[in-house]
Amino acid sequence: MPQLGLLHGRAWATLLGQLRQSPGALCLRAVHSHSQVSEAVLTSQLKPHQEKSNIIIKTPKGTRDLGPQQMVVREKILDTVVSCFKRHGAKGLDTPAFELKEMLTEKYGEDSGLIYDLKDQGGELLSLRYDLTVPFARYLAMNKLKKMKRYHVGKVWRRESPTIAQGRYREFCQCDFDIAGQFDPMIPDAECLKIICEILNGLQLGDFLIKVNDRRVLDGMFAVCGVPESKFRAICSSIDKLDKISWKDVRHEMVAKKGLAPEVADRIGDYVQCHGGVSLVEEMFQDPRISQNKQALEGLGDLKLLFEYLTLFGIAGKISFDLSLARGLDYYTGVIYEAVLLQTPAQPEEEPLNLGSVAAGGRYDGLVGMFDPNGHNVPCVGLSIGVERIFSIMEHRMKTSSEKIRTTETQVFVATPQKNFLQERLKLIAELWDAGIKAELLYKNNPKLLTQLHYCENMGIPLAVIIGEQELKEGVIKLRSVPSREEVAIKRENLVAEIQKRLSES
Amino acid sequence: MPQLGLLHGRAWATLLGQLRQSPGALCLRAVHSHSQVSEAVLTSQLKPHQEKSNIIIKTPKGTRDLGPQQMVVREKILDTVVSCFKRHGAKGLDTPAFELKEMLTEKYGEDSGLIYDLKDQGGELLSLRYDLTVPFARYLAMNKLKKMKRYHVGKVWRRESPTIAQGRYREFCQCDFDIAGQFDPMIPDAECLKIICEILNGLQLGDFLIKVNDRRVLDGMFAVCGVPESKFRAICSSIDKLDKISWKDVRHEMVAKKGLAPEVADRIGDYVQCHGGVSLVEEMFQDPRISQNKQALEGLGDLKLLFEYLTLFGIAGKISFDLSLARGLDYYTGVIYEAVLLQTPAQPEEEPLNLGSVAAGGRYDGLVGMFDPNGHNVPCVGLSIGVERIFSIMEHRMKTSSEKIRTTETQVFVATPQKNFLQERLKLIAELWDAGIKAELLYKNNPKLLTQLHYCENMGIPLAVIIGEQELKEGVIKLRSVPSREEVAIKRENLVAEIQKRLSES
Repeated sequence: MPQLGLLHGRAWATLLGQLRQSPGALCLRAVHSHSQVSEAVLTSQLKPHQEKSNIIIKTPKGTRDLGPQQMVVREKILDTVVSCFKRHGAKGLDTPAFELKEMLTEKYGEDSGLIYDLKDQGGELLSLRYDLTVPFARYLAMNKLKKMKRYHVGKVWRRESPTIAQGRYREFCQCDFDIAGQFDPMIPDAECLKIICEILNGLQLGDFLIKVNDRRVLDGMFAVCGVPESKFRAICSSIDKLDKISWKDVRHEMVAKKGLAPEVADRIGDYVQCHGGVSLVEEMFQDPRISQNKQALEGLGDLKLLFEYLTLFGIAGKISFDLSLARGLDYYTGVIYEAVLLQTPAQPEEEPLNLGSVAAGGRYDGLVGMFDPNGHNVPCVGLSIGVERIFSIMEHRMKTSSEKIRTTETQVFVATPQKNFLQERLKLIAELWDAGIKAELLYKNNPKLLTQLHYCENMGIPLAVIIGEQELKEGVIKLRSVPSREEVAIKRENLVAEIQKRLSES
Repeated sequence: MPQLGLLHGRAWATLLGQLRQSPGALCLRAVHSHSQVSEAVLTSQLKPHQEKSNIIIKTPKGTRDLGPQQMVVREKILDTVVSCFKRHGAKGLDTPAFELKEMLTEKYGEDSGLIYDLKDQGGELLSLRYDLTVPFARYLAMNKLKKMKRYHVGKVWRRESPTIAQGRYREFCQCDFDIAGQFDPMIPDAECLKIICEILNGLQLGDFLIKVNDRRVLDGMFAVCGVPESKFRAICSSIDKLDKISWKDVRHEMVAKKGLAPEVADRIGDYVQCHGGVSLVEEMFQDPRISQNKQALEGLGDLKLLFEYLTLFGIAGKISFDLSLARGLDYYTGVIYEAVLLQTPAQPEEEPLNLGSVAAGGRYDGLVGMFDPNGHNVPCVGLSIGVERIFSIMEHRMKTSSEKIRTTETQVFVATPQKNFLQERLKLIAELWDAGIKAELLYKNNPKLLTQLHYCENMGIPLAVIIGEQELKEGVIKLRSVPSREEVAIKRENLVAEIQKRLSES
């Protein structure tokens, strides 16, 4: 019966082929073929293109599509990152793309203006998440969890003025790892820095440095320099810009825009030039002003302990205590860090890229308490990998390399040299799919053999199976190695096993 | 030098332990310790909890977090789905969460009111994507691509009145597979149905059925029943509700709300009761009214060819031609389909769930042309897997099963029976991490051995390495199998190799 149906079907296909023009034309024609063509139907089905020629087809400002080649790179990065997070025992978590607007209020300081709000369409007021940290704290408070080690990979949205060339987007992917819970000091913090090192090493991005500071050292420094406490966070935001603009411009912003006394700014200027290893921590302990500030001493004590653990982890050489590191976000309370790549392009002909930080994080012991109705806190420390900037580097590298990247994983192509063999090709490919083999064919009734073989070569498909009348009669299939063009005849019943054997060998 | 630093560090840790209370308290204390406590600083650092006790900590209506156990289930589903898409040669694609508002206009018919708009904060007007199909069509048009086979896994957002018990959310994950390009009829369409079968079989969701219809058969049926053409899409939307509400209610909506003549509604009623296999296609060819309609005949011809290919794929038994299947979305132009699970709960004690469709799709040959400034079309056909509904079933099954699900992948736990062994534990765990072994320890200076071993057992960690003074002296490590509690001493330098051997055996 299927055979009979098939013949009918083929006749139908021919008939339909005659009826059919381009499907869009077909659709418009169908509309016009009726007597009462109403404007409403035309509009809802296919708007005549004359009316929309002024629309530019694009993605929103600061966003982009990732095409197949880019997806291969993205997946490679995420694989490295997520397997590192799992190596450190993290559990997965996912949260909604938007939160109640009030959940994001007063968490981001000056950056709050960059939050995307949703339109009030009735009901709750919502905002797109700005990072994965605040949703994590909200999750902990909501579920009254006192400890958790989790990772989260997801998109976040920020209404920044994008300079896409620098890898800054309005939509971007973050990979976060955080440790929540009351633990002995600096052990989780050191692990976060170890993770950043493992990931940056794993991605082979070249040499890098992790700048470390402490919010309490920073605040203590502000206090001893004479910054009024009400200006701490605002000055922090200015200092945070030191990796993008010069000290002169930062100083100007602090004095002219934020009303800081010039001599106070200059005192800060002396400190923010300091960076070094654990010896700088010791030096700061001796600093006549800093050593008078209790907060700063607590921060320095933690940094000293941190360096000790980093030495045990074998990564102290990658870490720099840097008094200019500020981190703009309001929620940090202790150690903060930021990883930067040291610019030695892999290829001499590569242009240097301005990449900013590729990973960052810190301790935020007060954030969960902001959500908890009783103000109960859960100390947290974590890190975020900036996928987009890493992506820019890897994509750039990919473009300058001659290596061809496969965008599909197809293992076997089903081909025929003969006309009217669609039936057999369909039966054969179903057999392969059902055996878990990645297989493709051309969606044509009668494709040319050369077209089929070219497709295999262009797409990098390693194997082709070829079926024709002769093979059908003999109960065999030709198995072709695409790179070597060698062909052997395999009994039909042994085909799947032979393919699996060949694939496991390669 | 590191050793010396370590001693200093430990002394510091003790000192800090005395200084430190709960970190939240520490932070507030730090603020109060200054003479000029300004309101601004208090607000921006830690808002006193009295002020916010009226805020309910929750996710937005119709959304949810996925905790670690749920993430394990989600990942299992996505793995099955994505590996099937890759088996069929699809390339990956990602698009932004939001699109220019005008890109989504006039694509969704009556559902357009469910689109989330972003607030106008200056600049472009944006909307969250409603599905992954329209962004794909926009991508094709924007890049002038004439063919592409791609998959896309991502969240979409719809302002539906959510009944979460039925697995309906306002934010949900879709897994789409689409084939764009001008090909011979029904070959890609048949592959889409094959993919749905492979995925539903692979997920072991029990028996299922895929309802198939064609937009042209539906429109032809409307025409011959006497529906004015201006009402086609509106009546289509009503018919689409037949799986949720009764024919009586659908009829009422069509007559009372959409102004259809009662006798026209009754004629439609006769047809929408029809469902069956390829024989029903033949029957419809003979139907005195339907056979007068050219559009309907084209649709029936394609369905006949489709059934032929489905027979070759061995899945015709899973497919039902169903004249009540309508699909609400405006953009479909040809074959449409929807997979439903047949309700036989896996366990007799399981309550039956109302699950709706778990996969759906169809042909949309006019959508890309709506974006192209010259109206050039690219025929497309595709499918979407409804992850949330599948997730509901699998989660329900998981809850009723006694099997314990691991939420981490940790392979080795680093333990010590002795005090003051943090140093050695940190050195040892860094060695394991650097060898790619998934390892954890407790973030305590002096955890109890029993606490450490309990942690391994609770978390299902298979191996523990134990280091104490004796082991350190002898240059060995104790390797413990957590389930059997057997311990052997291994030379320190052989530890990584022995662990890797044990893990590869299990």
